[in-house]
Amino acid sequence: MRMSQLFTKTHKDAPKDEAAVSAQLLLRAGYVYKQMAGAYVMLPLGLRVFNKIIGIIREEMDAAGGQELTMTALQPKEPWEASGRWDEKVVDVWFKTRLQNGTELGLANTHEEALTGLMREYVTSYRDLPAYVYQFQTKFRNELRAKSGIMRTREFVMKDLYSFSRSQAEHDEFYERMKATYTRVFERVGLGGHTYMTFASGGSFSKYSHEFQTLTDAGEDIVYLDRSKKIAINEEVYTDEVVKSLGLDKDKLEQHKASEVGNIFTLGTKYSEPLGLTFTDEDGSVKPVIMGSYGIGPARVMGVIAELFHDDRGLLWPEAVAPFQVHLVSLARDNQEAEAAADQLYNQLSDAGLEVLYDDRDESAGAKFADADLIGCPLRLTVSPRTLKEEAVEFKLRSQTDHELVPLAKVANAVAAKLAR
Amino acid sequence: MRMSQLFTKTHKDAPKDEAAVSAQLLLRAGYVYKQMAGAYVMLPLGLRVFNKIIGIIREEMDAAGGQELTMTALQPKEPWEASGRWDEKVVDVWFKTRLQNGTELGLANTHEEALTGLMREYVTSYRDLPAYVYQFQTKFRNELRAKSGIMRTREFVMKDLYSFSRSQAEHDEFYERMKATYTRVFERVGLGGHTYMTFASGGSFSKYSHEFQTLTDAGEDIVYLDRSKKIAINEEVYTDEVVKSLGLDKDKLEQHKASEVGNIFTLGTKYSEPLGLTFTDEDGSVKPVIMGSYGIGPARVMGVIAELFHDDRGLLWPEAVAPFQVHLVSLARDNQEAEAAADQLYNQLSDAGLEVLYDDRDESAGAKFADADLIGCPLRLTVSPRTLKEEAVEFKLRSQTDHELVPLAKVANAVAAKLAR
Repeated sequence: MRMSQLFTKTHKDAPKDEAAVSAQLLLRAGYVYKQMAGAYVMLPLGLRVFNKIIGIIREEMDAAGGQELTMTALQPKEPWEASGRWDEKVVDVWFKTRLQNGTELGLANTHEEALTGLMREYVTSYRDLPAYVYQFQTKFRNELRAKSGIMRTREFVMKDLYSFSRSQAEHDEFYERMKATYTRVFERVGLGGHTYMTFASGGSFSKYSHEFQTLTDAGEDIVYLDRSKKIAINEEVYTDEVVKSLGLDKDKLEQHKASEVGNIFTLGTKYSEPLGLTFTDEDGSVKPVIMGSYGIGPARVMGVIAELFHDDRGLLWPEAVAPFQVHLVSLARDNQEAEAAADQLYNQLSDAGLEVLYDDRDESAGAKFADADLIGCPLRLTVSPRTLKEEAVEFKLRSQTDHELVPLAKVANAVAAKLAR
Repeated sequence: MRMSQLFTKTHKDAPKDEAAVSAQLLLRAGYVYKQMAGAYVMLPLGLRVFNKIIGIIREEMDAAGGQELTMTALQPKEPWEASGRWDEKVVDVWFKTRLQNGTELGLANTHEEALTGLMREYVTSYRDLPAYVYQFQTKFRNELRAKSGIMRTREFVMKDLYSFSRSQAEHDEFYERMKATYTRVFERVGLGGHTYMTFASGGSFSKYSHEFQTLTDAGEDIVYLDRSKKIAINEEVYTDEVVKSLGLDKDKLEQHKASEVGNIFTLGTKYSEPLGLTFTDEDGSVKPVIMGSYGIGPARVMGVIAELFHDDRGLLWPEAVAPFQVHLVSLARDNQEAEAAADQLYNQLSDAGLEVLYDDRDESAGAKFADADLIGCPLRLTVSPRTLKEEAVEFKLRSQTDHELVPLAKVANAVAAKLAR
């Protein structure tokens, strides 16, 4: 994409009301725009990162057997009354509204009730199970305070998958599969070395749920981590008894602030019983379906990545989620030969399937380099009359300070080699 | 995809409260699920069609110079008060809600106000214009009555593009470009021969807006069509004077019911003036930006396609938007050799990049053929012990009644040839 065409601009300063470094950088670089506290617009650059994170999650959900749908935000109250979650005293983050005839509606903050009701339409026999259903859908949560930028908002897309199993054993098997799936998702988006499976509070149907917590001071949770075993315990269930039962040694646990980037939860029959989602088993008996839920917030993942990967000049995106792989800076200005060479390189790299942000604007070298650092694509290429005298391009990784000249004829290969590392 | 894995099932009967044929068929075939009046879940089959329509629209918006973002549903009231559209007496489809501190919020039914405010952040000079910004985003409209299935709902994704131009001439040029773009979109999704550009009421800044109306008895609009000139007039502006001014002959106009699948609208400075979106022009003068808006509802397009392309057995999707190109029916039942042959064909076609819905279920031939007809993929292939005796596959287009045997070795080529027509 040509930067001269991009309607957003970078800003020198961040708004004063944003405490999170990730939000400051994402706002300054033109990834997001703050519509109001807790509601952010994904600008073109931000949408690219967001969609890459979603793409990785989708691939992993499909590989785990998930089937994608999209449910509605508008919710009639009846299913939520059946589960006991319509009351604001039980769920304190409801946004509610009304039809013109006065009928009260809710904006979904999660979808257990709605999906359990929907599945009644399609599940009658053991032959219809198991089923794994997921969506990327907008949740509305009336948080008392919205802070932490895009890491905790009032309106956000969530990937929520729900499992429907015939037996506890079948549920447990899928639950273990999702542990591996989640581990892979966080590795692929670049959070692997910083994210730990964490024991957290369960419910009526299991002692624990499992969170995936990324260590960061911007997080809202406290975890106790056994780094060698790669296991953590959420503060909320951190007792001597739990430490012991997990075979951990209290003295070896590190206390960290962390952000919950995903969670998996055994629901048992909490929703299938009150909402009447049952199936006839092979032996003719009628049983409630065993359920689980599995969530990831792609925007929170994006915010946490920005928290972890930045320096004082800007963002440093992991390649898999970078808005563009290459930031091509033209310092041609009025030199037509250099401009033509930069255009040609842009076309050549794009034709080779690379994603290139091409700074073809009429700006100073300093402004262009500052923007490249702020935006944070993994690789910067610079074309100028000076590099062209050597028939070369300046080649620099965002993560490193040194740069080298690469002959024009070898640039495409050099880029491919660097990015494949 | 294997149908044995698909969690949805077809239904023999449609719910009695659905009047629209498209809704009846989409519900019966498992494309959508009705959450409540005016709010439908996109099930896996439906989401595939929906995403294909979105993909086509996105390609055309990008080709026209559009930049994609995603705005928020939650809206603070101030920008809407500035434009005069916060009041329910002015906009009668608001859903409103409140933050926990009592602050009133709206759920966006459109995004002129929000985007005009956002653009103030990035537009100051004539060098920042023109800009064309679009999204696929969920709108909420508190319709008094929700009918027509997915063609008019209370919650729906809209593609809304907004143009920001420096002058009327620049605006007019883009507006003309969008006429061609819209024409191409409707051709590509399969509505080309049934959709007409229609003169409809304008606003303060232009005499007309332009709708794209698809002729169908399920539509809510009345248009007067000159079939040879491919131009129609919406009933709302249909007067002798308008007919004359467009150079049409009243006696040659046909009256039709039609559904509005898209519209383009000149906004002028209706929003830029009250919201203060101005730019400094080359001559140093400060001017309000000239705006336009351009909408398409992908779910309405999907519903209208279903209205136009069905018979008494089910849907007949145009290939470009079909959930799968090929519906492969295995009648192997307990014949292991036939099952292996069907599996092999499924893998072979999938590996060739074709989208195949593979009916590997243990059902009767009658049930499988009925489901194939109801779901409506363009091409049906049937593998059975009988066809395998001839080392062949039964090959049938959904749109035709006759079928032929195609040798197994030539199936992939025959499919490619048929689909390429």
